[in-house]
Amino acid sequence: MKEIPGGITAPAGFKTSGIRCGIKKKGKDLALIYSEKEAVAAGVFTVNSVQAAPVRLSRWYLRSGRARAVVINSGNANACTGTRGYKDAKTVTRSVAGELGIEQENVLIASTGIIGKPLPVEMISSAAGRLVKGLDYGGNTAAAWAIMTTDSFLKEQAVRFRVAGIDLTVGAMAKGSGMICPDMATMLCFVTTDARIDNQALEKALGNSVEKTFHRITVDGDRSTNDTVIVLANGLAGNRKIGTGSRAFRDFQKALTHVMSSMARMIVKDGEGAAKFIEIEVEGARSEEDAKKIALSIANSNLVKTALAGGSPNWGRIASAAGNAGVEIIEGNLSISIGEEQVMKGAAVNYDVEKVRKSLSADEVRVVVALGAGKKSCTVWTTDLTEDYVRINKEYS
Amino acid sequence: MKEIPGGITAPAGFKTSGIRCGIKKKGKDLALIYSEKEAVAAGVFTVNSVQAAPVRLSRWYLRSGRARAVVINSGNANACTGTRGYKDAKTVTRSVAGELGIEQENVLIASTGIIGKPLPVEMISSAAGRLVKGLDYGGNTAAAWAIMTTDSFLKEQAVRFRVAGIDLTVGAMAKGSGMICPDMATMLCFVTTDARIDNQALEKALGNSVEKTFHRITVDGDRSTNDTVIVLANGLAGNRKIGTGSRAFRDFQKALTHVMSSMARMIVKDGEGAAKFIEIEVEGARSEEDAKKIALSIANSNLVKTALAGGSPNWGRIASAAGNAGVEIIEGNLSISIGEEQVMKGAAVNYDVEKVRKSLSADEVRVVVALGAGKKSCTVWTTDLTEDYVRINKEYS
Repeated sequence: MKEIPGGITAPAGFKTSGIRCGIKKKGKDLALIYSEKEAVAAGVFTVNSVQAAPVRLSRWYLRSGRARAVVINSGNANACTGTRGYKDAKTVTRSVAGELGIEQENVLIASTGIIGKPLPVEMISSAAGRLVKGLDYGGNTAAAWAIMTTDSFLKEQAVRFRVAGIDLTVGAMAKGSGMICPDMATMLCFVTTDARIDNQALEKALGNSVEKTFHRITVDGDRSTNDTVIVLANGLAGNRKIGTGSRAFRDFQKALTHVMSSMARMIVKDGEGAAKFIEIEVEGARSEEDAKKIALSIANSNLVKTALAGGSPNWGRIASAAGNAGVEIIEGNLSISIGEEQVMKGAAVNYDVEKVRKSLSADEVRVVVALGAGKKSCTVWTTDLTEDYVRINKEYS
Repeated sequence: MKEIPGGITAPAGFKTSGIRCGIKKKGKDLALIYSEKEAVAAGVFTVNSVQAAPVRLSRWYLRSGRARAVVINSGNANACTGTRGYKDAKTVTRSVAGELGIEQENVLIASTGIIGKPLPVEMISSAAGRLVKGLDYGGNTAAAWAIMTTDSFLKEQAVRFRVAGIDLTVGAMAKGSGMICPDMATMLCFVTTDARIDNQALEKALGNSVEKTFHRITVDGDRSTNDTVIVLANGLAGNRKIGTGSRAFRDFQKALTHVMSSMARMIVKDGEGAAKFIEIEVEGARSEEDAKKIALSIANSNLVKTALAGGSPNWGRIASAAGNAGVEIIEGNLSISIGEEQVMKGAAVNYDVEKVRKSLSADEVRVVVALGAGKKSCTVWTTDLTEDYVRINKEYS
């Protein structure tokens, strides 16, 4: 498997477009992904009970397991907009489908931006012709720009790998920057591939990859009303169809997790309010679920996050947050390392404070918590909590 | 029921003492509560898996349901201190019991302060004589000062009420200021009463009151390793013994909830980093548990807390945090009010922005979320999230 340029247009048969239609004050705000051939499609959406209209509509369209296109707008989330919002989302898919000459239910939709304002549906529909005309095999960057809100850098990647003598390609683009304006910070991720794969295998692979990537990042513990991951597989590589349980499936899974992991890390790194990228590994747990609960409890603790922002070797906060996860911990077996230095082993131990301070002053900090209870582990990624986070989120409206 | 002065020495037969023994850099740091007569006793402790030595020891001593005294030190939490910490806690209770001439197991213990440092047990034991000599029927204020760490004001209250012609008194003192230095911000609360009550009734009353007070405040979602609430009932009022299910029990319960509610609110209000006191009421839920989950999800959301700090009428964040609680919400039935103004009803509604901004600029802000799903409700109290919170917690070590 090697990384290649081209983002979501790297796989065969995908064109994209990214234009400005006027929703945002400036910049591109409307993107389209189009597959020459109908693709097998799968999606994972926010688990928030309050779900935006485009999330509900795409979920409905996806019951067929097929799609040809995805239209995405930034600047307006179309969330908390009632029945009108749902109708508006439908209108957008109808307009785009009309221009493409395909069925409306073959066009998925995603939105990101402000909550509670009606979608400027006229603006989008009247731009649909221009959007479709802009479709291009090299349009990946334009599309990736158009889905951004407060993101400070473009998030895309593609990888190529070989299965039984045939090259398969997986591409991805994403937006999200939790620390900045989290109302605007819906996490969106779109993945394209030319692999031939059956629907069940694609859904399984997507579920596994989400679990190992997006479900393991946390910026402030909040899940948006619009979070969406969609994958389209058009089969144009001509490989033997991938089913679950095969070696090809494992290779595909690896490639999918690779690009989604890159997207997830980029989202964590892209926060103006965030000064540090924090990796928290919990090992020696009885189950992966236990390890994940504890890792997330530490990653979501404001006390841990402020201590890390301040470069303070305050391991008591880490121990306390670990204990706060609702998982039984035997304190005498608990050890904590910051960087390479062990700072707790069953109880307080002597450690090199200067060494720990040095680890904590880096841009990337690694914390390892060992429970001594079993063999399972989990790693999550998060950021520190800074005055800038508060300032930016106070000022946003 | 009326509020009276005297704090925990207002009930008959309780003396307290508060002195400096040298654990903290300055100020009193050692307190003692003593009942002339052996008291029926009950405690509620932190649910954190990592529990400080004094928590484990007091829990053990309390298996008898009886106690005469409580010794409390500030400046050192005796947490993450291994078997040595447990021995140290025992040594302290033995020293104090020796000076009082009672059994060691009759002396409960609580600690608050820095985690992971050995308790300066010599310092405390050698001050035990002076501590006991200081016992005074008017010693409530000295004791309340001695348990403080970063608290900025004294937290105590007493109430008197009449049951079948006999006056009963309940007093309380507390420490805690989550927003400041949460490692030091263990929540401690001690309640004394001269009511005669059986052990089962006291435990039940305490459990109910904790559920309605301390379990409904949240500053940053973290629970400390040392949180402790202890109640001592010495029966010196001479009333007919209170059992569960009686009218006297209900009156006692009311008084207990009253003083504990005051303590809980004072703890939320006492945060240098906190600029606002926030009340979040969730109503129209199918169960009180659902209402509480949603209220806490909103109260613990950094996005909601920063919006409130900034005075921003950003109700989308409230809706999103409500949806994030793991409780099913029907968006079309969801309404949200800030102050007196309704800002969402099923979807976005027109509202008076200036009126909402005015409500948000006050020291106390009330948010009501109605689910339209049932008749149960729950109210929780929290604070906003400010730059000061981050600054203070970064700098502390």
